[in-house]
Amino acid sequence: MPGGPAITQMHPLDRDALQALLTAHIAPARALGLAVVGVEPLTMVAPLAANLNDKGSAFAGSLYSVAALAGWALLTRWCVAECIETEVALQSSTARFLVPARADFRAIAREPEPAQRHKLQRMLARSGRGRTEISVDVSCAEVLVMSFTGAYAVIASGRGK
Amino acid sequence: MPGGPAITQMHPLDRDALQALLTAHIAPARALGLAVVGVEPLTMVAPLAANLNDKGSAFAGSLYSVAALAGWALLTRWCVAECIETEVALQSSTARFLVPARADFRAIAREPEPAQRHKLQRMLARSGRGRTEISVDVSCAEVLVMSFTGAYAVIASGRGK
Repeated sequence: MPGGPAITQMHPLDRDALQALLTAHIAPARALGLAVVGVEPLTMVAPLAANLNDKGSAFAGSLYSVAALAGWALLTRWCVAECIETEVALQSSTARFLVPARADFRAIAREPEPAQRHKLQRMLARSGRGRTEISVDVSCAEVLVMSFTGAYAVIASGRGK
Repeated sequence: MPGGPAITQMHPLDRDALQALLTAHIAPARALGLAVVGVEPLTMVAPLAANLNDKGSAFAGSLYSVAALAGWALLTRWCVAECIETEVALQSSTARFLVPARADFRAIAREPEPAQRHKLQRMLARSGRGRTEISVDVSCAEVLVMSFTGAYAVIASGRGK
């Protein structure tokens, strides 16, 4: 575990606390300039310059990174709000790249439905492990450029591999 | 289009030429330390340090980035070998993260079957556009940590959007 503030020390996770977590713990978030700009809805932005590809648009891996991180941040924030000490890890994903992003881009993670949150709570209470899907839209100048759905594992601390 | 050597100037694309392309044109490849180490099979590596997440393992977005880039590099190299001036762009993907990568990691892109290559050649000859899937395995210390399948568009130069 790298240095910096621990996730469980930080109640509640507002924008600044979440950004501090990313800066301390996620090296590529620093390198690619990925930043949290809002938490309701969970919104992250990325600069085009640090993420350019050979076509002068955003690299697919960078669009994916900001989407995967937005989903992770949404779930991590939810666990902290529920006072559950967890690790959140991406297990699988599907992604579609719709049009090139030719300027800075923005990822918005969709809040899970109440039924989905309740199911996750029940799974965590019963076994200390849960799994849920989060969808994230990445847009550029108000145009949807990429859609992402990730299945995340949520594992109560001490129960992970 | 950023500066640096153009793809079509570089026949054939050996390891050094491919690495020069990435360094010149793909900003995140530089930031994350993604490097080509072989072309048959197309193999890229990434250092753990530049790609750490909150759990002390490799960030999912970095595993994805090296896989997506390995698939792109394989197809770009094939197009250059066929003397086809193209743009290659990722359209969609599925990814599964199997176990955490706790050391430097390596992506190997699988060569398409001959039938798949011939189909792509026919599509390009007929319409200047094609599409094909490439699978990439990412491993760490000989253990498969992530599997990726990407559908890439291949568009003859001058025909893109």
